[in-house]
This record gives sequence, C-alpha cells and structure tokens, in this order.
Amino acid sequence: MRSFASDNNAGVHPQVMEALQQANEGHAVGYGADVHTERAVEVLKGHFGPQSEAHFVFLGTAANVLGLAALVRPYQSVICAETAHINNDECGAPERFLGSKLVGVPHTDGKITPEAIAPLLESRGFEHHSQPAAVSVTQPTELGALYSLDELKAIGEFCKQENLRLHMDGARIANAAAALDVSLAAMTRDVGVDVLSLGGGKNGLMYGEAIVFMRPGLDTDFRYVRKQAMQLVSKMRYLSVQFEAMFGTDLWIENGQRANAMARLLAEKAGAVDGVEITRPVETNAVFASMPMQAIETLKQEFFFYVWEPTRPEVRWMTSFDTTEDDVERFAAALKRAMDT
Amino acid sequence: MRSFASDNNAGVHPQVMEALQQANEGHAVGYGADVHTERAVEVLKGHFGPQSEAHFVFLGTAANVLGLAALVRPYQSVICAETAHINNDECGAPERFLGSKLVGVPHTDGKITPEAIAPLLESRGFEHHSQPAAVSVTQPTELGALYSLDELKAIGEFCKQENLRLHMDGARIANAAAALDVSLAAMTRDVGVDVLSLGGGKNGLMYGEAIVFMRPGLDTDFRYVRKQAMQLVSKMRYLSVQFEAMFGTDLWIENGQRANAMARLLAEKAGAVDGVEITRPVETNAVFASMPMQAIETLKQEFFFYVWEPTRPEVRWMTSFDTTEDDVERFAAALKRAMDT
Amino acid sequence: MRSFASDNNAGVHPQVMEALQQANEGHAVGYGADVHTERAVEVLKGHFGPQSEAHFVFLGTAANVLGLAALVRPYQSVICAETAHINNDECGAPERFLGSKLVGVPHTDGKITPEAIAPLLESRGFEHHSQPAAVSVTQPTELGALYSLDELKAIGEFCKQENLRLHMDGARIANAAAALDVSLAAMTRDVGVDVLSLGGGKNGLMYGEAIVFMRPGLDTDFRYVRKQAMQLVSKMRYLSVQFEAMFGTDLWIENGQRANAMARLLAEKAGAVDGVEITRPVETNAVFASMPMQAIETLKQEFFFYVWEPTRPEVRWMTSFDTTEDDVERFAAALKRAMDT
Amino acid sequence: MRSFASDNNAGVHPQVMEALQQANEGHAVGYGADVHTERAVEVLKGHFGPQSEAHFVFLGTAANVLGLAALVRPYQSVICAETAHINNDECGAPERFLGSKLVGVPHTDGKITPEAIAPLLESRGFEHHSQPAAVSVTQPTELGALYSLDELKAIGEFCKQENLRLHMDGARIANAAAALDVSLAAMTRDVGVDVLSLGGGKNGLMYGEAIVFMRPGLDTDFRYVRKQAMQLVSKMRYLSVQFEAMFGTDLWIENGQRANAMARLLAEKAGAVDGVEITRPVETNAVFASMPMQAIETLKQEFFFYVWEPTRPEVRWMTSFDTTEDDVERFAAALKRAMDT
Repeated sequence: MRSFASDNNAGVHPQVMEALQQANEGHAVGYGADVHTERAVEVLKGHFGPQSEAHFVFLGTAANVLGLAALVRPYQSVICAETAHINNDECGAPERFLGSKLVGVPHTDGKITPEAIAPLLESRGFEHHSQPAAVSVTQPTELGALYSLDELKAIGEFCKQENLRLHMDGARIANAAAALDVSLAAMTRDVGVDVLSLGGGKNGLMYGEAIVFMRPGLDTDFRYVRKQAMQLVSKMRYLSVQFEAMFGTDLWIENGQRANAMARLLAEKAGAVDGVEITRPVETNAVFASMPMQAIETLKQEFFFYVWEPTRPEVRWMTSFDTTEDDVERFAAALKRAMDT
Repeated sequence: MRSFASDNNAGVHPQVMEALQQANEGHAVGYGADVHTERAVEVLKGHFGPQSEAHFVFLGTAANVLGLAALVRPYQSVICAETAHINNDECGAPERFLGSKLVGVPHTDGKITPEAIAPLLESRGFEHHSQPAAVSVTQPTELGALYSLDELKAIGEFCKQENLRLHMDGARIANAAAALDVSLAAMTRDVGVDVLSLGGGKNGLMYGEAIVFMRPGLDTDFRYVRKQAMQLVSKMRYLSVQFEAMFGTDLWIENGQRANAMARLLAEKAGAVDGVEITRPVETNAVFASMPMQAIETLKQEFFFYVWEPTRPEVRWMTSFDTTEDDVERFAAALKRAMDT
Repeated sequence: MRSFASDNNAGVHPQVMEALQQANEGHAVGYGADVHTERAVEVLKGHFGPQSEAHFVFLGTAANVLGLAALVRPYQSVICAETAHINNDECGAPERFLGSKLVGVPHTDGKITPEAIAPLLESRGFEHHSQPAAVSVTQPTELGALYSLDELKAIGEFCKQENLRLHMDGARIANAAAALDVSLAAMTRDVGVDVLSLGGGKNGLMYGEAIVFMRPGLDTDFRYVRKQAMQLVSKMRYLSVQFEAMFGTDLWIENGQRANAMARLLAEKAGAVDGVEITRPVETNAVFASMPMQAIETLKQEFFFYVWEPTRPEVRWMTSFDTTEDDVERFAAALKRAMDT
Repeated sequence: MRSFASDNNAGVHPQVMEALQQANEGHAVGYGADVHTERAVEVLKGHFGPQSEAHFVFLGTAANVLGLAALVRPYQSVICAETAHINNDECGAPERFLGSKLVGVPHTDGKITPEAIAPLLESRGFEHHSQPAAVSVTQPTELGALYSLDELKAIGEFCKQENLRLHMDGARIANAAAALDVSLAAMTRDVGVDVLSLGGGKNGLMYGEAIVFMRPGLDTDFRYVRKQAMQLVSKMRYLSVQFEAMFGTDLWIENGQRANAMARLLAEKAGAVDGVEITRPVETNAVFASMPMQAIETLKQEFFFYVWEPTRPEVRWMTSFDTTEDDVERFAAALKRAMDT
C-alpha cells in the first residue's frame, strides 16, 4: 500500500537499483576518483553546460547548506521565503554550519519577489546588521507552487544588479521541469542561478543529491568544505551511478511527469468529495486540502500523511514516481468514507 | 554640544571616572579575583537576591549572547521580537556563537506576547525544526516602549508553563526602572526572568555589562564559556568598580530618571513644531518622530542622529544621563529652523 | 583486479546487496520510523545490551563527531592519539561542529595510555584552558594495532576515576573482534566505553555507520543533533537493512576474519621479499612495510596504494572482506618484480 | 605591595589614566567614528606605515582570533608552537570562532622554525586533512624568549615561499622591542608578518589591544567580523585614546624597558639564592626558576605567582612597567627566607 505522506516514502526506482547492482563490480578507488563519478559529472555537464561543476553529497539539507557555504561568509545573511526548507526544516543546520543568519521574507505559496527582498538591502554597510549576500529560492516551493521562468529571471536580474548570489533548492526540480516543460538549465543557469541543489532522493534514488555550481571559481575549495561538513562519501561510485542512471536517461523527467499527473488526478478526485477543499494551486506533486479534523483522524488510520496547518486544518498529500491511478482511487475512496462517517 | 543620536554617545559619569581613579592603586590579581569584583557581585546580589549570580563582560552584545548560551543548545531556538537587538543589531553574533536559530515574532513597539509565541511551539518534538527553548524580551524595547509588570508576568508564567527559559535584554533597564518606579528585581526575578543582561554602557559607564543569573545552576560553566567567547576581562577590577559605583549607589536610577525626563521634554518641544509628529509613546529615553526628509537633512547638519525608517521617514532621538534642558531647547530650536526652511 | 589501498575500495557484500533489494518493496515512512530500522536497532541491542541505544548516520566521520557531541561541550577538549582519525583525517570536522579542541597525545602504533592522558588533567579548573572531558580511542588503531582488553579496561577505569567520558572509533571494530576473538560488547561496553562508532562501510556495507550509546541518557537529544549535523537519512530503511543483514548474522565477523587472514598472508609473502621490511605488528587487516621509493613507484603502476610516511619510506597495504589468496599471490609477485627491477 | 604573578596585575599607567580623563569631554559618536580613534589609527600608521590598517578590540585573545580570522577559513589550519597562547590559554576560542584546527609544533622556549613547520605541509591537497594556511609566532614567547630578526626573517621568507600567512601574537611586543632595540615595524612588517596582535593591556593600558593588518585587502570585512565576534566597542574613544597616549609617545617602549630591567635584576638576585635555579634565558620581563615545592608554598604566602611546571617544579615570575628595585629587593629577601626555612 502506498503512502501519500511524502515522496521520500517511495522506494528506489528499479532502473536505479539495477545500476547499483552493476556498479558492484570489483574494487574502485574511494572519494570520487572512480569512473561512475567521472561519468555522472559529465552527464550533469550535459544538462548544465561545460562551465558547470557538479559535486555529490548524501542528502538535500547538506546540498543546500554546502551550496550556500560557497556564497556567504558568517557575517552575511541568506534571504529566503519564511517557508523555505532551509529556514524551517533543517533544524538550524544552516545557522550552525554557516554561522550566518537566515532572513525569511513574505511569500505567496512559498514564492518570493524582488520587491520582498529589496527593503532588506538597506542594512548594507552597517556593521551592526548581517549583510545580505545571497538569495535562496525553492523550485517548486515547499507548498507545491512553481516560479515561472519570468519570475525567476526577475529575481536573477535583481540579484545580479544588487550583487547578491542566487541559490536554488531544487529538491523536487524534476517535478518543476515536468510541469513547465523546460530543461534544467533553462530554469537555473539561464535565469541567473549560481548554485543549485539538484534533488535525487525524492525522485527515485536511494540517497544522494548533487550540488551544481554554474560558474567556475565557485567550487574552488568545495572538496575541503564537504569533508569538514561530514559529507564526503567514501564509496562514491554507488552515489554517482544513481545520478548516471537517472540524469543520463529520461528517467528523471518521466518520474517527475508521473508524480505530477497523479497529483492532478488526486486533486480532482479529492476535490470532488463533499467538504474537502483543495487549498492551493496543484502545479507539481503536492496537494494541499482542508477538511474536518475528525475526518483527518479517520483517514489517517488507513493512510499516513501530515497535517500542515492544524488551525485550519490543512493537510498535505504528496504523490511520487510510483504512484498509480489505483493508489489514487483507493485513497479517494478512503477519503470519501472518512468524510461520510 | 551634545548628540541625540544614541545614549552611548554620552561620556562616562564623573562618579564612575572617580571610581576608576580610586581603583588604580597598586596591583590586583586579574580575571576577577579582586576586591572590587567581589564587592560588585555583592552589590548586585543586593539588587537581585542571594540566590543570584552576576558576572561581567565587556559589552551588551556579549551579555545577550553569553546569557543565552546558558539557556539554549545549538539545535534549539530563541524566540524574540523581530525588532530585538539580538535579531537585528548584532550582525549574527547569536547565530554564530550559539549555532542556534533566532525566530522573530510580531510585536507592538517591540513588545511580544504569549499569543505571539504560542504558535511556534507546535514544532516541538519534530527533529526537522529548531526546538524553541528560550524567549528573549527587551525592557525597554528598542522602540522605547515599556512592558508593564503584568505583561512581563504573563510572559514569565507562559514560559514556566511551557518550559521555556526567559532572557531579558536590559541594556536600558535603568530607564525602565525609572519609568515604572519599581526595583530591578521586581522587573526581572519576580516576573520569572532566568537571565538578565544588565546594562551599564548606555547609562554612564565607560564599558561593561553584567549578566545576572537569577537561579543557582545556570552559571555552572559560565566562566569557561566567557573565556571561549573572548569576554574574560584581564584587569577585571576596572570593570567591576564601575558597577560598584553605579549600582552600589542611586546613580543608576538617577541617570535613568534624568534621561527619561529629558526625553519627555524633547517630545513635548518637538511635538509642538508644525509638521513634526511624535510616532510612538515616549515612555523612556527614546523619541521617535516623523518629519520631511529635507528637514531631516538640514537638522543633521547641526545634530547627528539616525533615520530609523526611511520610507516614512521616521527618526530616532535619544537622551542620556547628561542631557540638559538647554540641550533640548537648542535641539528644538534647530528642529524648528530646519522645518521652517 | 583488487586494490590494497584501503578496505573502502572493496564493494558491497552480496548478502548486503541482496538485503537492499528486499527492502525495496513498496513505501515506508522516512527518517527511521520503518520496520528495518526497528529491527536493526534490536539487532544492535542484541550485541550491546538492552540499555544501549543505536542510531544511524551516513559515514564514519559523522559517527565520530556526533558521538563526541554527546560527550563534550565546546569549551571542553577531547584527548586522543596524535594519529587518531578525528585528529588527522577529518579536515577539522570535530573542531568545526563541536567547537572543541582536540588534544593529541603520544602513542605506540596509535595506542594511548592513562599515563599519556594524566598530565593533561592539570589544566582542569583553569578557565584559560580547554577542559578535558572525553577520551577517544581507536580499535584497531589507524596503524593496525590492537588494544588488549586489559589495556582498554585500564583506560576505562582511568576515565571513570577521572570523570572523563570514553569514546571508541570502531570503524574497523569487526577486524578487532575477529583478531581478539571477543564479542563486540566485551571490547566496548564491558571496558567502560560510553559511545561507540560502529563501522559498516569498511566491512562490506554500501554506506552507513552506527553510533551506539552504551547508557540511557546519553542520546536524549541525539536526533536533533543528527538533523542539525546534516546526517538524518530520509530513506532510512536502506541504511538500516544493511546493519540488519550484517550484524543480525555472522557476516560482520566472517568479513573481519577473512580480511585479517589475508593481511597475515600478505605480510608473510611480502616480508619474504628481499629488501621489503614489515614495519609494524600485523594484528588486523593493515600491513605497513618499508621499501625503496623506486620500487614503490614501479609497484604503484600495477596496484594503487598509499605511501604512509614518505621519509622512511613506509607504505600501507590493506586487505578487505573480499581479498582472495590469489589477489595476495598476484600482489606479492608484482612486489617481487618491482624489487628486482 | 606589588605582585610578580603577571604583568596584567599591574594597574593603569598615570599618563593613560590622564588621557582617559581628557577624553571624557562631551559627546562622541560611537563605534570608532571619533577623533581619538582617528588619531590612534594615525599613530599606528606612524609605526607600521601608510599601507597598514589598525583596528581595536577589547583584549588579546580577541586580537589573536580576529587577526587569524582574516587569514584562514574553517577547513584550514594554523600552525603554532605547542606553548602558544592561542593553543593553550584561550580555552578553545580559536577553534570555536574560526572552526579551524590549531596544530602545535615542537619549539625551543616557545620559538618555532621553518624546519618544524615544513613536514606539516605534506598534507596539502588532501581533503582529509586540515589545510595549513597560516603560521602564528609569539614575540616574545610565552616562555619569555625572543626571536632574533634573522629568525623571524627566516620564518617570514618560508611563509612567503610556501604561501602561508604569518600572524604574530605581540601581547608583549613592547618588551621585545626594548630588548632587541628595534622598531615595531622592523620586527613585524619588515620580516613578513601579515597581521599583528599589538598588546596594550600588559604594558599599562586599562584594556584594549590593536590588530594591525600590514597590507591593504586583509581587513576588507574586518568590521563585520569584529561585530559578529562581540568585539565592537561602543564608546570607542576610551579605548583609542589609550593607544594614542601610549604609542603616540615613548611610553610604550619606556614601560617595556623598565619591566625588562627589573626582570634582569630579579633574575640576578634570585639566581644568587642557594637552591634557586634560573631555568630559562631572561630576555624580556619573565623569569622562570626552579626551587623546592615547600619553599614555593612558603613564598606564596607573601607573594602570589604561578607554578608553571609542577613536576620540576618550575615557577614563573613576571615584572611590569611599575616594578621598582625595592619590589625586587623585597621579593628576593622573601625568597631567601623561604629557602632558608
């Protein structure tokens, strides 16, 4: 039975598992000096261009924090949406590792704008205030919303103009690419992103995320930072080969498309149930809905998922690369039963 | 000519300077094992009770950060007003030294309430979120407002109930005590404050602040934390004797009363000038006002002060222990001239 | 062709790969609330007793640093051998994450003694000095040497007596257990170890290490520390199931025995080659030898390995769970050729 | 009665106290935008050249740590003598604030050489090891020894050659200048020092040290680092004016000469007492001696001082700018009595 709690409840995609098997041949030098890592880096250069440099870490929080470590010093601050994963869901990892302040700004479904960032720049030059040096956006946002290319370009240009570095948390970027039907580069490099956290774990990998530095010079000392951050993988080939399998084929986008399609179906079925209201635009693989707390409790006996906003109450349901129409039907049926009781 | 930019533009009170002279006799063991430190600690026990423990550091930012270091671990967060000095005016010192997240909440003139804090406690028990462990209030606030004893009690009781530690930034607590006409203990220990930053520098000392731990056990390892935080004063006697001179007499409260009175006078005079609007309640030694930017520029040619909120525009004027009625008259006259041009 | 550079050049043991396959069934809640994690924790309780608590992280450096995080505060120091992995091979990760000082003491083949630790304790109580709070030993050491149970007991008793916490880096503890023919508990819990880094990656896992807290109370806030340290695994089941497969059977000890046996064979064959001197006792799966630099260069054209001490010169060769007698024969033959040229 | 425990047991020199009085006139803008700070910076440019930049902090530990903060990143290490103040007497402040590893090397009376540093550079380029980036020397050393100009030049050239930055802890540099009879620049800038901690507190100031950056570019972001490090002085004029008084006249060197002369006298008198052995060259204002523990205890009843090395036992006696021949005579007499009993 499949869960709608999070896309990380899904397993490992069969093609990825197969690649892991194949990588398990003989010996390989550790820490990245192996052929799978070499190939995975090439694969990502294929997506982001020859000037880009990709490195691998274990998980998304580390991808975000280490990517930002290349952009800010401790006395500088990172501007992000109040809802950003780095701001809410990393237990202060950025503050502790970077020593930097995170400044949350108002947002719409997790999306921020130059207008929201601009007022913070008045603190520049005053040593009493953390100095804004980087902006971090999440595509798609933690609330399932999408930045359009124009919205991203506007932020990218603003950052260039204001000498701010731009980081993108792309934990679910495959879902964004599928929804916008654009290339990975179009959503990142081409809009002015300096550093990207390229998600893998939520899209069918066993573990592992990539940090893509879009320009030379940004990753000069990265390998030392990664080691000190406890993110240097010893048997790197097993992490790299997963990226090779996913981004060296269309698997990444197919998985994103599937999850998005199932979310649309789920929203449609759930929205049709009396008393259930879909509360946010369904643009990727997240569905937010409000329903009575009693029905939530009943439904939770069959399916585990998270209550996002208890006061409303609002719940979050997520689909994944392996969600089937059957899963959605079963879930919708259970939802209906829960609402009827 | 006196400044209205900040109470730290004032000098050292003559009685404090006199005490520094007298302490400059022969040799004394360093790092706090001297008679002046012993006496200063006794003097503060006189204010806060025998169960309290006071320690000295160089400045207010350190008093705040080291006080909080006794209350939170890196994975825990500190809740404060968005306008709090620790959140805005310490260049990320708390984040860097504590490794902790600061969470700013909505406020009225810098004052927060249990209602504003409560929603943050839902994150408790979820390892993805910084765990709320301490609340920090500023008395009076950075906007010159005062918490009433009842407002502080409400926060104190809420913290006890919710197992949150309570820190008070008392950089200008003498002004608060003067305004509320209550003892230092009544505003701190008696309302449930665990740790107090007791201000000295803004009230006539040359340098130095005290951290007062209201209960035994809180300062067990303080002296190691202070040394590692680069705040252990070698010739401690010169810092301690200033506290002896100020808090062993009525000097602290007299200075607070004087500054407050001059602020009231300034607000009255300035408020009477056409086009100048006093924008916040004048409860201690800060006066906030709005006036045309052009007049601000003109006035700044005679008196240096800060523009607090450029969009409005709103300015901040502060009085100090040595502000005279003449100073205020001269400033008000200059203000009138600036508005007339 | 197999490498003798490090035991992390070996791949994933077939039984572990098989377990990963089997775990790849349907959905599972993330972050450790899955049946494999539950079982893996039980399996480790079987080894270390019901009072122990095990948690999983991605790699050995994190196991060491997070284990120590439960034992020291930033103003406290960790005492270890100058050669300890935490002191030499973690790029300052302990200093950065803990904020603590590491103090290296003299050693014999990586082994330290109470006599070497005792002089450091004179700094206790002086706030100018980092306060010794924990001792870290590596079993077997980075130089392949073994502590006897009596040597460990002596350190354990000294630590208890002196109120020092004892950490053990057990990245290769399976090799130690195989060599001493004792249980994991006998070498750790029973000699006074408080926290153990239990190695997996160097003994046939794909990734993952366990931190075993030997007493209740030590891991109270571990899950928050782990998240803030960027070590909370989202799809935990895939990490846990590897520990289940390895420590729920005899695989761990068999792998250790095999690697040790092959090291003895390698030492015998290599030691028989004219001009090659085995420089340290071969007690586990590491062989240290000295030979002319020219021969080293020649041999390196066939086999990659590390020069440990260039001045001597001394090299390190390591065997792993999958090293065969054939591998050793081929290596010894190549060594002979290299020495003959 | 004067102490021989440390030169920080002495008080404030009358000329410095006088300057503090004179600075206490009217109002001044805080944080360094005052005329005394402007003048003090000019005074130090007079010593170190127009290309130098000086900044002020509260104390020596901060001067060292913030100076080093301009030279290393967290994954880089600082090489120093095992006896260095930064390594032994700052309770891990460098590790905590910098996140960097300190690596102590063998020394002679606290002096290190290129030969002692060179072997550590082999770790360069290996991400597993902290990367050596800076060398820190103390002039004079914590053991009272002096580097000759040639010894310093040798280290400076080695550092330039090896692309290492050079920091000097000059907490007692006035004593060194007096002993070597050279200018401050000759001992620092001219031998290749990048950043100097210029001591004040041990030579007659009430508080305060300067950090002198010898080249433009090194202090670009210093003021933010200082604020985040809790070292930005609000009433800066009182700190600056002390440097103006001391380094704008010959007071600094006269104080150093006096303390050194008294140390020589003390060594002569003490060395003449039967059973007392002067254990180290007396080159500045420290005298190290060995004598029976019982005599130490007796002498301590009259004079407080530190036992440096209990096993020997070896004691440290320090003279200061205000030590008189009478003080030395009285101390020598007490020493004799202690030895006779």
